[in-house]
Amino acid sequence: MNLPEPIDNLVKEFSRLPSVGFRTAEKIVLYLLKKPRFDLERFSGSILEAKDKVDYCKNCCMLTDKSMDLCSICRNPKKDVRIICVVSEISDLISIEKSGNFSGVYHVLHGELSPLDGVGPEHLFFDKLWERLTGGNVEEIILANNPTFEGESTAIYIKRFVKERFPEIRLTQLAQGIPQGGSVEYMDHITLGKAMEGRKEI
Amino acid sequence: MNLPEPIDNLVKEFSRLPSVGFRTAEKIVLYLLKKPRFDLERFSGSILEAKDKVDYCKNCCMLTDKSMDLCSICRNPKKDVRIICVVSEISDLISIEKSGNFSGVYHVLHGELSPLDGVGPEHLFFDKLWERLTGGNVEEIILANNPTFEGESTAIYIKRFVKERFPEIRLTQLAQGIPQGGSVEYMDHITLGKAMEGRKEI
Repeated sequence: MNLPEPIDNLVKEFSRLPSVGFRTAEKIVLYLLKKPRFDLERFSGSILEAKDKVDYCKNCCMLTDKSMDLCSICRNPKKDVRIICVVSEISDLISIEKSGNFSGVYHVLHGELSPLDGVGPEHLFFDKLWERLTGGNVEEIILANNPTFEGESTAIYIKRFVKERFPEIRLTQLAQGIPQGGSVEYMDHITLGKAMEGRKEI
Repeated sequence: MNLPEPIDNLVKEFSRLPSVGFRTAEKIVLYLLKKPRFDLERFSGSILEAKDKVDYCKNCCMLTDKSMDLCSICRNPKKDVRIICVVSEISDLISIEKSGNFSGVYHVLHGELSPLDGVGPEHLFFDKLWERLTGGNVEEIILANNPTFEGESTAIYIKRFVKERFPEIRLTQLAQGIPQGGSVEYMDHITLGKAMEGRKEI
């Protein structure tokens, strides 16, 4: 089945996007080709516009309008700047912020340490984080890296640095356990171990 | 959670695509923003390029390079032009062609009749199909519209027209029944009825 080359190329481009397989990419491309050119100009224009008009927050490295130095969270006077929640990716920040359980601010590292993939400390936004800690206002750092090998390595790296340089800052990590709606039967042994270890009086 | 406006807009654009929900759209946008501008220029450029360089085949209304009047299927000398398989959408053609069970040519209607959605015969590529039948070379038309209300309506419309104007052309429709790997237990009663009706000697 030979589709015209520009279509093949476009399907390939779309299938590289996260959560988009080859079939979905094909579906998207056929859908787009039915649209008038005007709509496609707007669509492709908004991709470049987002890239051009958005930058990282000078403080927490979250996304912000280029016209603003600080993101909407860092500009929010209701946020408690004494508590910093460190996340690996912007999507993690969005999930925590949407959950509504946190009133502090964030720091986005934009990745996790992964020596095998060539990601060292110099590739992540650690310097920005140390800078924020030197101000002396920070009372607690909550590590919200994923409980994976890379996430744990990143957390350990932060822990070592903070314990050495800023021993007065409280350092915590998100609790691990059985997620809401999960079943004990199907949990892996590490999760069950952590849940047992972190058990609470009721 | 307020994301910068250009990001919000882009997430909305992506979530309008088929098979892309809000969460996936968010994921895609965050992924794209990590890419260098150069990559995004190529990506958005290839959307417009596909639109500009591709047109419908003058014969069967499949997609083809604008530099060619006919698509790769209509240009293929091995294809039997006496048998036309009528499909609703390009994606249907792709699936049948990939299955490798059909050696004839196609006709893409680009939609199905749906009076409730305002889709009448004038919105589909019926005229092109009637044109092809007047040549007198066509021996069989296989209707491969979906077995849904809209697909059946479209098939009935073609049936009436062909029976009246071209009674010498054989008119067939794809068999309905239990799909490979399906379970009799979970089939709906219409499918079971069709499977029973279309049962074969073994």
